[in-house]
Amino acid sequence: MDQTSSTPITHQTESFAEGIELDCGTVLAPLEVAYRTYGTLNAARSNAVLICHALTGDQYVAEQHPVTGKPGWWGRLVGPGLPVDTDRFFVICCNVLGGCMGSTGPRSIRAGTGAPWGTDFPPVTLRDMVRAQSMLVSRLGIERLFAVVGGSMGGMQVLSWAATFPERVFAAVPIATASFHSAQNIAFNEVSRQAIFADPDWKGGRYWEEGRIPARGLAVARMMAHITYLSEEALTRKFGRKLRREPGAVQGTGPAEGAGLFGEMFEVESYLRHQGSSFVRRFDANSYLTVTRAMDYFDLAADHDGDLAAAFAGTRTRFCVVSFSSDWLFPTGQSRMVARALNRAAANVSFVEIDTDKGHDAFLLDEPDFDRTIRGFLQGCAEHAGLG
Amino acid sequence: MDQTSSTPITHQTESFAEGIELDCGTVLAPLEVAYRTYGTLNAARSNAVLICHALTGDQYVAEQHPVTGKPGWWGRLVGPGLPVDTDRFFVICCNVLGGCMGSTGPRSIRAGTGAPWGTDFPPVTLRDMVRAQSMLVSRLGIERLFAVVGGSMGGMQVLSWAATFPERVFAAVPIATASFHSAQNIAFNEVSRQAIFADPDWKGGRYWEEGRIPARGLAVARMMAHITYLSEEALTRKFGRKLRREPGAVQGTGPAEGAGLFGEMFEVESYLRHQGSSFVRRFDANSYLTVTRAMDYFDLAADHDGDLAAAFAGTRTRFCVVSFSSDWLFPTGQSRMVARALNRAAANVSFVEIDTDKGHDAFLLDEPDFDRTIRGFLQGCAEHAGLG
Repeated sequence: MDQTSSTPITHQTESFAEGIELDCGTVLAPLEVAYRTYGTLNAARSNAVLICHALTGDQYVAEQHPVTGKPGWWGRLVGPGLPVDTDRFFVICCNVLGGCMGSTGPRSIRAGTGAPWGTDFPPVTLRDMVRAQSMLVSRLGIERLFAVVGGSMGGMQVLSWAATFPERVFAAVPIATASFHSAQNIAFNEVSRQAIFADPDWKGGRYWEEGRIPARGLAVARMMAHITYLSEEALTRKFGRKLRREPGAVQGTGPAEGAGLFGEMFEVESYLRHQGSSFVRRFDANSYLTVTRAMDYFDLAADHDGDLAAAFAGTRTRFCVVSFSSDWLFPTGQSRMVARALNRAAANVSFVEIDTDKGHDAFLLDEPDFDRTIRGFLQGCAEHAGLG
Repeated sequence: MDQTSSTPITHQTESFAEGIELDCGTVLAPLEVAYRTYGTLNAARSNAVLICHALTGDQYVAEQHPVTGKPGWWGRLVGPGLPVDTDRFFVICCNVLGGCMGSTGPRSIRAGTGAPWGTDFPPVTLRDMVRAQSMLVSRLGIERLFAVVGGSMGGMQVLSWAATFPERVFAAVPIATASFHSAQNIAFNEVSRQAIFADPDWKGGRYWEEGRIPARGLAVARMMAHITYLSEEALTRKFGRKLRREPGAVQGTGPAEGAGLFGEMFEVESYLRHQGSSFVRRFDANSYLTVTRAMDYFDLAADHDGDLAAAFAGTRTRFCVVSFSSDWLFPTGQSRMVARALNRAAANVSFVEIDTDKGHDAFLLDEPDFDRTIRGFLQGCAEHAGLG
């Protein structure tokens, strides 16, 4: 793994020559927003659902991914007849600002230099990401979104949408998320960043100049993060202490790098190594740094003098807050905090904790109670919104 | 951090020319066991307490550490008048086999080669570590230990002692531990190993040949592990989302490597970086690999056809199993499993869960309920053992 991806991929984008003024004060111009849509916008332009993706997600929600060839990351939930029903709704998903799938980010060419931004890319916030999305939504001729839906960092965007553009969001579904990033989550992000910095191919962030990628550091970052997306129960159920012989998976030369005590390795190790090595083929290290930083700095209450309810004062958006019982990265308590703040703001809010052992990743996995929750909430809201 | 420690330290050791036959079949000869003792062995040789240390601990339990200059790692619990009372007990602690503080390990010179073992060091098990300790205990003229006490990997050794040498252990105190390493814990260990392998100074495990150490990889491993030793509550209480400006702590050159969004970093990040960088000055990477592997392969029930109770059949040892409510690395459920197996084996067992928000590390921290538990249990056992 010593080269960047060789075939350039053309993403569907909208370009904004005027650019965007970021929270840090920098004007980023031009701004490109890469996106995909599914379904048809109705004549009243009132059936649009914006999906917000998580840290390492992208706009390819419900179709084959152009880099990995895998099915869309939320193809289980979004499609004809599915809970987010594309026969009924016009679904939009943008690659986040700072990402690496076509929206402006560290891999984009910096105007006037001919070279990528790299580590000079300005810091972005969750609110900056949401502002970029709002520009695309306006460009598509949509005044108000029927719903904004997202899990994990996508859920942070949902909350930021509802707080920043309350009049533009009829319904909001923040899933497995929080109104701020906890000390533990900042700590995990910091370790993943240090793993990238420790890779010799990182080269102070200028790896792209030599056609290198900090593949091993990025893989370590991904492996660690992946553990936090699961639960102890799920790992025990899937892998337990099962061993396997898999010489092909062994990297490096020393015996300690490869198989373990008696020439074997644990299945969970093999699985993690695969997660790490497949990730580096599709994600940019500087984007990983930019986007994890944005998550760390997210604190919606801090933007309102420490009062989370004030972020939602006067809101008429309908909320469905969803958490998963075994999620220890964004524990139910953090969703409950959001629901309580919404209650204090006299918002229309349902709060559902789904009982599952699948951990944080449950929102991406087969979880019938979760599917029913999303379908039912959107159905109810559609009736209130007068959608056919 | 580009050199190994410069001043060789002489540790107190016993040497066994005949060596030790390991579970893997290799005979490791000679065997050196580095150790420290505190207090006085009584005439009956019946008052010895063996302390077993955790993954990155060592034999310097209750005195200044010769490398770091810091106080002993369990000086809070072990000493005159303390719960493990050195006015009353003769306390022994050995550096584990495979370690790097004087006992035979990857940094030891391999007989006949003049060079360190490095990655050629044979794999060791928790039982191998315990056998090496038992040789030292015999050498000191002690037939039976009054007590064996340890937390985390030290607790695994306590369980292995009780299962391997039941006649030699009057009382056993396994703390914050388990009878096997879980899939989640194996996964965390694997990520820490991959972080070491990803460091260019790792050099396939032969870093010592060039006087290098894989400092950044080892620091990443330590940072990640350190998060697992704490709890979300403890991190929130200690650091929350507090920011600091600390240019001195910034490594590397790129802006992304240093301070964050607005020229600041979170206190929890600064704390973790310190944990990482101070660790590499005292610990050997090949030892880290060897000892984490030993933990991963620990599965006491598997050695007894899957029946943990069988590991303790007929035992007359008195057990005090201790867990901490907020420990998510070795959750209470895993200690309960040990206590239940001991009950099935008709052993004399107390099981205490200490209510605390300090996480796994609670056994090393100020926790009065824990201190009282240890003091009370050892006091009661001493009366039964007829110790004055």
